[in-house]
Amino acid sequence: MPGRPFLQIPGPTNTPLRVLAAIAQPTIDHRGPTFQKLARSVLERIRGVFGTTQPVIIYPASGTGAWEAALVNTLSPGDRILMAETGHFATLWSRMARRLGLDVDLLPGDWRSGVDAARIEAQLRADGERRIRAVAVVHNETSTGVTSDIAAVRRAIDRAGHPALLLVDTISSLGSIDYRHDEWGVDVTVGGSQKGLMLPPGLSFNAVSPTARAASATAGMPRAFWDWEEMLASNDKGFFPYTPSTNLLQGLAVALDMLEEEGMDAVFRRHLRAADAVRRCVRHWGFDIQAADLREASAALTAVRLPAGYSADALRATILDQSSVSLGNGLGQLTDRVFRIGHLGDFNDPTLLGILAAIEMGLGACGIPHRSGGVESALAALLGADTPTAAAAE
Amino acid sequence: MPGRPFLQIPGPTNTPLRVLAAIAQPTIDHRGPTFQKLARSVLERIRGVFGTTQPVIIYPASGTGAWEAALVNTLSPGDRILMAETGHFATLWSRMARRLGLDVDLLPGDWRSGVDAARIEAQLRADGERRIRAVAVVHNETSTGVTSDIAAVRRAIDRAGHPALLLVDTISSLGSIDYRHDEWGVDVTVGGSQKGLMLPPGLSFNAVSPTARAASATAGMPRAFWDWEEMLASNDKGFFPYTPSTNLLQGLAVALDMLEEEGMDAVFRRHLRAADAVRRCVRHWGFDIQAADLREASAALTAVRLPAGYSADALRATILDQSSVSLGNGLGQLTDRVFRIGHLGDFNDPTLLGILAAIEMGLGACGIPHRSGGVESALAALLGADTPTAAAAE
Amino acid sequence: MPGRPFLQIPGPTNTPLRVLAAIAQPTIDHRGPTFQKLARSVLERIRGVFGTTQPVIIYPASGTGAWEAALVNTLSPGDRILMAETGHFATLWSRMARRLGLDVDLLPGDWRSGVDAARIEAQLRADGERRIRAVAVVHNETSTGVTSDIAAVRRAIDRAGHPALLLVDTISSLGSIDYRHDEWGVDVTVGGSQKGLMLPPGLSFNAVSPTARAASATAGMPRAFWDWEEMLASNDKGFFPYTPSTNLLQGLAVALDMLEEEGMDAVFRRHLRAADAVRRCVRHWGFDIQAADLREASAALTAVRLPAGYSADALRATILDQSSVSLGNGLGQLTDRVFRIGHLGDFNDPTLLGILAAIEMGLGACGIPHRSGGVESALAALLGADTPTAAAAE
Amino acid sequence: MPGRPFLQIPGPTNTPLRVLAAIAQPTIDHRGPTFQKLARSVLERIRGVFGTTQPVIIYPASGTGAWEAALVNTLSPGDRILMAETGHFATLWSRMARRLGLDVDLLPGDWRSGVDAARIEAQLRADGERRIRAVAVVHNETSTGVTSDIAAVRRAIDRAGHPALLLVDTISSLGSIDYRHDEWGVDVTVGGSQKGLMLPPGLSFNAVSPTARAASATAGMPRAFWDWEEMLASNDKGFFPYTPSTNLLQGLAVALDMLEEEGMDAVFRRHLRAADAVRRCVRHWGFDIQAADLREASAALTAVRLPAGYSADALRATILDQSSVSLGNGLGQLTDRVFRIGHLGDFNDPTLLGILAAIEMGLGACGIPHRSGGVESALAALLGADTPTAAAAE
Repeated sequence: MPGRPFLQIPGPTNTPLRVLAAIAQPTIDHRGPTFQKLARSVLERIRGVFGTTQPVIIYPASGTGAWEAALVNTLSPGDRILMAETGHFATLWSRMARRLGLDVDLLPGDWRSGVDAARIEAQLRADGERRIRAVAVVHNETSTGVTSDIAAVRRAIDRAGHPALLLVDTISSLGSIDYRHDEWGVDVTVGGSQKGLMLPPGLSFNAVSPTARAASATAGMPRAFWDWEEMLASNDKGFFPYTPSTNLLQGLAVALDMLEEEGMDAVFRRHLRAADAVRRCVRHWGFDIQAADLREASAALTAVRLPAGYSADALRATILDQSSVSLGNGLGQLTDRVFRIGHLGDFNDPTLLGILAAIEMGLGACGIPHRSGGVESALAALLGADTPTAAAAE
Repeated sequence: MPGRPFLQIPGPTNTPLRVLAAIAQPTIDHRGPTFQKLARSVLERIRGVFGTTQPVIIYPASGTGAWEAALVNTLSPGDRILMAETGHFATLWSRMARRLGLDVDLLPGDWRSGVDAARIEAQLRADGERRIRAVAVVHNETSTGVTSDIAAVRRAIDRAGHPALLLVDTISSLGSIDYRHDEWGVDVTVGGSQKGLMLPPGLSFNAVSPTARAASATAGMPRAFWDWEEMLASNDKGFFPYTPSTNLLQGLAVALDMLEEEGMDAVFRRHLRAADAVRRCVRHWGFDIQAADLREASAALTAVRLPAGYSADALRATILDQSSVSLGNGLGQLTDRVFRIGHLGDFNDPTLLGILAAIEMGLGACGIPHRSGGVESALAALLGADTPTAAAAE
Repeated sequence: MPGRPFLQIPGPTNTPLRVLAAIAQPTIDHRGPTFQKLARSVLERIRGVFGTTQPVIIYPASGTGAWEAALVNTLSPGDRILMAETGHFATLWSRMARRLGLDVDLLPGDWRSGVDAARIEAQLRADGERRIRAVAVVHNETSTGVTSDIAAVRRAIDRAGHPALLLVDTISSLGSIDYRHDEWGVDVTVGGSQKGLMLPPGLSFNAVSPTARAASATAGMPRAFWDWEEMLASNDKGFFPYTPSTNLLQGLAVALDMLEEEGMDAVFRRHLRAADAVRRCVRHWGFDIQAADLREASAALTAVRLPAGYSADALRATILDQSSVSLGNGLGQLTDRVFRIGHLGDFNDPTLLGILAAIEMGLGACGIPHRSGGVESALAALLGADTPTAAAAE
Repeated sequence: MPGRPFLQIPGPTNTPLRVLAAIAQPTIDHRGPTFQKLARSVLERIRGVFGTTQPVIIYPASGTGAWEAALVNTLSPGDRILMAETGHFATLWSRMARRLGLDVDLLPGDWRSGVDAARIEAQLRADGERRIRAVAVVHNETSTGVTSDIAAVRRAIDRAGHPALLLVDTISSLGSIDYRHDEWGVDVTVGGSQKGLMLPPGLSFNAVSPTARAASATAGMPRAFWDWEEMLASNDKGFFPYTPSTNLLQGLAVALDMLEEEGMDAVFRRHLRAADAVRRCVRHWGFDIQAADLREASAALTAVRLPAGYSADALRATILDQSSVSLGNGLGQLTDRVFRIGHLGDFNDPTLLGILAAIEMGLGACGIPHRSGGVESALAALLGADTPTAAAAE
């Protein structure tokens, strides 16, 4: 197929060529001085992306691994953990917790809303014996395009006067949506390389608060690969306790350069502005988005609900075939009912508008009723948009 | 600037990453067996792109060099050459001919039309002494987006019964617009790497008819670097008489793979379809294109005329700044009055629509009056377009 | 520093540029058809490298993760596992087993010999209650350059009539030293990407026998990320249960092409021949190698013992500084006493001889007494060597 | 073939991966602001490599083109030019001059010595009518590995009080051997990208003295592509009069970074030191080098004479086949009698010693009588060599 492919799933995202070029430089000795300098730099600079001055652990493993790491470093078998079913990924994380032998209390959800902080607070207040050891929520639910108010969850925990740790998955928001590990009092933040960090998959992260680290001292879950302490001890010297993903770290250094050059605030604004344009386009077409409340709609992706009777998967296949644009599929209960547009990572206006145009062409080709002109409406939004009308996330 | 740059000048074009990866493989010995195999393959396969079974010479030099090569291999100092002022590049070529000591007869033109074959015929008929040794025309005038009917020029020469050679510049049409060196009786076809061949600049070509080769035996223009005979003698053995651009040849092999995979007919149709969509968009905005007759409008680029009083260069600067889309500037007498959209080489629908959207945004930002909705109209054209309504080139 | 760096630690190895170029191609949708085709191909073809027709699991994690995967999928907390202290990595693996709550029986070793199959047999015979659930050994001990006879270990288990599973680490032998998962009756083989597979670190493997898979059904160790069953179920459809390392898989496809082009037998012979040359050179210098018995000396790396009183780390630093050659350091009890030469992955004779020459220069620069002429003696070995005199591995 | 290829012809040289990565970044608009910044930087910085404060012209063409440029910009048809037959390339240049219609006075040579300044002086003194317009010599004759004393040639011209221009080919010495365009009073220096500048072939250079530029005003040779004035006028604005080799210029910027990081003096010393080691090795084997006088032996390459009866080409083929080392062939009268070792561009000690070892292996495999131990003798030279015993170049 001629032309450049557009990877517009909500991650992995399009890796900038500068980053790919850095990854393709030769592998270096992970015990040598050049690596040490690289490691020290990325370990220090990655903190800024998480909004923390505390250590961030970098695993040579994809994001699901960092979910596991957050659990096994802080909890003991049988510990109770409070989770919120915001969508497919929150559900998968809760299933993982169960498989690891935790006692999961999963607050049911409609997959269209963020975490209900009031229910978290109620649940914690009801936990007189303080059996709940952690609250684990997803900041940006990649399956639905709904973000949750993490600061509100922290306030809920504090109001309940509950000692539970706060674990947050930011895999698809990190580096795209404003996030503040320290300010929001998060204990473990889970991140991945292949979304806002603009890298291929293969690195994942745990930002760790002092409270979380203290909890790990007594956490009884068996662990080795994911263990924080060995990692932190090695990291202090600029090394890793086992072979790190050297080439991806070479890429991470360049990705951090790019984020720093643009400035994190500008990065967040760029995502908000794009999200607003996408949603105007979707509404113009006449479709609903999965987020029930626009104030919770994600700045990083938009899940679009097709009218009943139309196959989102058939639409995606048509668009991929016609236009080399990859869109995200509906997951779990949303299979074939929604498609997801990733607007995160490295993109600009013509990329965004080109994708929307490809979707509009696909709607036409599939005979899905819609009002044409969506692209123009996105274009108008981008052109006018100093202040997006629909604020995403916080 | 975040996001991928769009290089939408009418060449150099966006080099596919497969091609860039081949160019970035290590340089090989240009006198060794691996190179010999590569050279034999590309020398053979490039002929298909020119529509010839005759040899094609590959210079390690950019396209202007191949213009010079066409002249110095076929002509002698003081020889008369008939040229047609179709635009800036035709003018530059005529200026080169003069500087090389040729006696140029440049048929004046309005920069909005292709070559007038009837005038060529008239001029040749008037040349009773057969002083005109060559007719040299540009197939696709990159400064105006106007193509010329080369078959008609050949018929004109034949009707005049004139022995003049036919030299044709296809730098910006080769690999994008249907072209037939043998069938149309062209003697020397001049090409470059950085347009439809999807390579960076640095290679250029002469396809050479037996008549042209015979003429070179007596052509008296001093020449060495550009000389065909040493080149052809070396090429026969799979080598070059001096150091070739090895890495670009590595890229050329992959570019030829891609053209062959898509099929030349599909490549030409893709360009026609894109050109049609671009022109519908431009007309929707309310602008004229530089080509006076739509039947001559190029399938590879569109030069857009802005209303009087608006600066095309300011618009281009805004679009580059806002959207990382590079557009071609107006050249010569068209400076600041037109901008040129390259739609050639490696592209697909979302790329094309993204570019048009970026231009529409730029028009808005610069306050240039236009009817919005151009992108939708291009989109509709692409969606419906099995048969483009406006045929380009022949 | 001018010139190409030589990464001659015993892994990560020098990634061929073809492989790096494949890794640097854009990330693709891990749920799309292009990925599915890629996944099916590498999942099938990787089996040949392990010598198995059974499934091989590919983790998006570095090698230490695959150690953990082998343990948590087959064992239950408190299970007894018999291990052999062949060196630093065997010790690390046993330490991991302990941290995961297993009851480790570590047969002590002198770090100069391979696994003693007779002792394994004796230990198993003594285990009347069949409490030992697994025997876990390292095929090629990367810290010492000593290989173990895995077929002999299998025979020992069989002779003892013991049902223990056989788990084998081939991280630094896979793709370099002959290995036969099926023929040798191995239950879980652990591999990594960054050694004989010539990739950067970031992928790791479990080849799984039917017996191992059956054991996993009742294994009680908590697991999620490392769980085989979800992985195998997804792999059957050409996908992964969570985000795989797409770009490294793109590289793996090319690495497998290269191994298949050369032929695994030729690959093994190339490593044996190189190892023989290196050892002749080391002996010529007058140094001992760490392997006590030449028949156990590794074909993939050589650990060289320096005379007492000389610092191996100072030598390595000098060589890195002078020659951009990275050598492996002594680990654990061998710290500063040995240096390790990696001769595995992608190399040829001039690379090998260049490295040995750099080491000889370093010996001179550090004033470490040695007999000069080592390189010539390696050269003679390579020149004459159709049959290496010192067979490595089995 | 496994392992990294060694491109040890005396150019093109091994392009560093940093440079290849820069070349493989996307093509940019050669009329846009990013390009302008790049062009200004490389046009300024390249002067330092030539040892000049005067303009250096960069052609998008390989080195032979810059030979032609030097001639056609300074001379008129029929002009007399004094050249010196130092080897194959000097002969080719003189042949080019003849084909361009110049009256060449070629001082015969034995292909083993540099330019004889005394003969130049005598010839100029004998030229009472001042018919000789230029003296053109090769600084480093790539076919023989013999350098010429350019400062001595300038002194000869001055002593003769002759106004002839001094044209010098530095294609295979530039960036490898000390060269001083201004200090030595050179009028046109011809260079290429693919040797000491560590780029692929495709760029070539003319450094131009004010005298040369003045001469070009009256030079009557027809020229267009090679014309200096249009180029210099465009360059002043940071642009080029026709499409430049944008991607190679991206690479050039990085190559200049590398040369500046190392420092030109260090670069020259590195080449001298390597050349000394290579020659010790060759002498140890028992072979002569082509340079008759060691003081003229090139720091960039060594042409090795095989004993009568042995085929240098068969040896080269064996070495390429065994070791993936490409060596230069004998050219012209030296065909099959010498082979040439390139030791220029980007290399370090292990690369150099690995190549010599590969040659020694090839000698063994071909049964060419030689004294073994050459590599050790090179190694000793490198180890001891603070001051090379055999000075190359000036």
